[in-house]
Amino acid sequence: LIKKPLLQELLRIVGPENVLSTPEAMAYASKDMATSVLPKMPALVLLVHTREELIRATKACLEHGQALVVRGAGTGKSGGATPDADCVVIDISKLNRIIAIHKAGLLAELEPGVILSDFQRAVDQEGLFYPPDPASVAMCTIGGNVAENAGGPSTFKYGSTREYLLGGQAILGTGEVVDFGKRCMKGVAGYDLASLLCGSEGTLAVFCSFIVRLLPKPKDRALALFLFAKDEDALDATQAVFAGGFRPRSMEYIDSTCLEALLALGFKAIGEEACSALMIECDASVIGAAVLELKSIAHLMEQWPKSRAILAEGAARDEIFTMRKSLSEACSKYLGHKLSEDIAVPLSAIAEFGRWFKAQEQKGLKCGLFGHAGDGNLHVQIMFKSAAHQSAAEALRHQVLLQVLKKQGTLSAEHGIGLQKKDYLALEQSKALIELQKRIKSAFDPHGLLNPGKIFAS
Amino acid sequence: LIKKPLLQELLRIVGPENVLSTPEAMAYASKDMATSVLPKMPALVLLVHTREELIRATKACLEHGQALVVRGAGTGKSGGATPDADCVVIDISKLNRIIAIHKAGLLAELEPGVILSDFQRAVDQEGLFYPPDPASVAMCTIGGNVAENAGGPSTFKYGSTREYLLGGQAILGTGEVVDFGKRCMKGVAGYDLASLLCGSEGTLAVFCSFIVRLLPKPKDRALALFLFAKDEDALDATQAVFAGGFRPRSMEYIDSTCLEALLALGFKAIGEEACSALMIECDASVIGAAVLELKSIAHLMEQWPKSRAILAEGAARDEIFTMRKSLSEACSKYLGHKLSEDIAVPLSAIAEFGRWFKAQEQKGLKCGLFGHAGDGNLHVQIMFKSAAHQSAAEALRHQVLLQVLKKQGTLSAEHGIGLQKKDYLALEQSKALIELQKRIKSAFDPHGLLNPGKIFAS
Repeated sequence: LIKKPLLQELLRIVGPENVLSTPEAMAYASKDMATSVLPKMPALVLLVHTREELIRATKACLEHGQALVVRGAGTGKSGGATPDADCVVIDISKLNRIIAIHKAGLLAELEPGVILSDFQRAVDQEGLFYPPDPASVAMCTIGGNVAENAGGPSTFKYGSTREYLLGGQAILGTGEVVDFGKRCMKGVAGYDLASLLCGSEGTLAVFCSFIVRLLPKPKDRALALFLFAKDEDALDATQAVFAGGFRPRSMEYIDSTCLEALLALGFKAIGEEACSALMIECDASVIGAAVLELKSIAHLMEQWPKSRAILAEGAARDEIFTMRKSLSEACSKYLGHKLSEDIAVPLSAIAEFGRWFKAQEQKGLKCGLFGHAGDGNLHVQIMFKSAAHQSAAEALRHQVLLQVLKKQGTLSAEHGIGLQKKDYLALEQSKALIELQKRIKSAFDPHGLLNPGKIFAS
Repeated sequence: LIKKPLLQELLRIVGPENVLSTPEAMAYASKDMATSVLPKMPALVLLVHTREELIRATKACLEHGQALVVRGAGTGKSGGATPDADCVVIDISKLNRIIAIHKAGLLAELEPGVILSDFQRAVDQEGLFYPPDPASVAMCTIGGNVAENAGGPSTFKYGSTREYLLGGQAILGTGEVVDFGKRCMKGVAGYDLASLLCGSEGTLAVFCSFIVRLLPKPKDRALALFLFAKDEDALDATQAVFAGGFRPRSMEYIDSTCLEALLALGFKAIGEEACSALMIECDASVIGAAVLELKSIAHLMEQWPKSRAILAEGAARDEIFTMRKSLSEACSKYLGHKLSEDIAVPLSAIAEFGRWFKAQEQKGLKCGLFGHAGDGNLHVQIMFKSAAHQSAAEALRHQVLLQVLKKQGTLSAEHGIGLQKKDYLALEQSKALIELQKRIKSAFDPHGLLNPGKIFAS
């Protein structure tokens, strides 16, 4: 429970209407979208509206030795926003100003609570482009994107959030407010703290604002859905695209089970036959070049005689994008329950991993795979009808993580370790490496008050 | 001077023929290619031939409290390889095996002493592509590239070394040998140590090996040299390329003074008229798309009525590339002496900075600018005829750095801080930020034995 002098100070800083402890507010702040993390009640929820309030409230907590978690939209999938200890949750969703878009400088400054799709829209109106595009784009905040180094389909060509974070302002665990990074496209003055902070899951600093890099908007885009007779054909086809020397904007895999789940949710674009799909989008900075690349890829796909291509334009295009973004939901609804995992394997191991996973189907458990095949990043879906299968599903989830490590893969490609996988980290990384990271954590946060309990097992 | 028990151990580890203290070896190891750093003699030079030797020799030094600097080819430009304290220099240039190129996995494993152009050639033979391309490509080592986060012309489209470093093996200042990073294209398990280590200038760890990401090789490339009537026109033209939505592979600026220096060195490709140039290369994964983009850019350039374009093919193409790589040398030879700086400014400030710098020309000092205009990264050249102008040149160099910071630029875009600019770091970054970085340094190297004296002022 929170100390009285701190509570009084917080009431003064943000006003009583923004210090929340109603059951609804506490329940909302107790969890994110992780499927294997139990909710935990915070000590209190604070709603901040300005950077000054954020800085003052954070400093007050730190001075009183009060642990805290910063929360954006709560769309994270590893429990990163779940208040593990007796934490104050600072909700930054109202700290959502786009401070400036500098068109000639190809950069923008913005606050952490900006919703990604709002930002993308504003940037697009300037003829510019901000590539990161997680499926939660319409809800998630830039702050959460930076905390988790969010990716998405276009990461394949354009990289994750880290490639776009130039710098910003942050509060360290010491209470110091620092400007980090740069306003230039390149820079090697000192250590790359922007890259280190990106993906640090709220454990190193509290973000006040960001400077992000923008790109000129590609003038040409072309999308196709390639349908295959077997799951394996689609996975093999990803290798052919690499070998063919292509660099599409995205290359998304949807296996037969996930396609069934989409059909069940009412998406008809792909027709009734259950088969696997690759959704490939090309883009280019000159008109005509994207279609040129996509047609070359389509030509390549003809080596799978039973494959067929749907070149998607207009409404069909929109439906396919909506379909892709609905995959996680479709798998949740398909049998009523699911566990999901976010893993990556080396590119050469994708097909093999896919085969292994599908062979794990058992009574009551459906195994589905979708994700960013171009990056070897698969979102593993374990679906089941009733709570009776929960423990079997958990056991399979455990096996999936072990199998990924066996294939020299990684526990998390883009969702973070958070609470969900911290007990596994020691299976991927050595003790010396984890101890090093804890010393880095101490360099930023000597008293361990920023998002305690995450990433590293206690 | 080195302690006797340590010396004996080192003799045992690498053999007497690889423990060097001849005047030639000591002089070679006393400096790199920085123009404003005085040479300093090392305590001793060790030549290692295997990773095991590197690990044993490094551990022996650390156990005896002996400071050390790792040296690749010594092509750095900030004094990073200069042994500041009484250091042992470990020369890793013979640790130069390409361990494996995994074609299907789009990655390679290699030792730090591999020469960049050797690696590029091997990768190219597999139909793959490793983008970083500093001008020193034919001499520099991958180890040095990682230590400084080397860039080059293609950074504009493809990013610097950091974007390709997936992981590797390193020795911490504690003597622990750790595997860091991943073999996957994406991964967020724990902090991004690969990004942090990249560009850390040898101050955080000693590298034993790297895992780097490769790309499919672009099938199409097209190069043009655009000549302009005035320096400013070329700089304004870079803005037009951004605004036009193009993303060429590289966009290199050469001002009138640097073109004169090239002419003086015997390059005739550009003709006798002194004017400024943009060298723009486009590439694409389908045949025809690169020329398409380059032609669209050429069309854009017609708004500068006195500009002309040389579409470079065959031998002309090779000469232009050689010319670009010879710029630093040409500026050194032009008047016999030079100081150079590597800075970046925000893209919107390039033309303004260029104007300011050219206005600083004074009796005895010629001001030249070339570099990666697409990234706002300019290599500032201060050329002079005799040592009598050295102090005026140093004074101008000082003014350049102050002007860069005034324009919200950075002290170093790709060459590092090293010894050359450590006294300036506090002008770019706050005390709190620098202290944080020193704590990070301690997390890796608690006794301060790895490349001491670099980056941070004492």
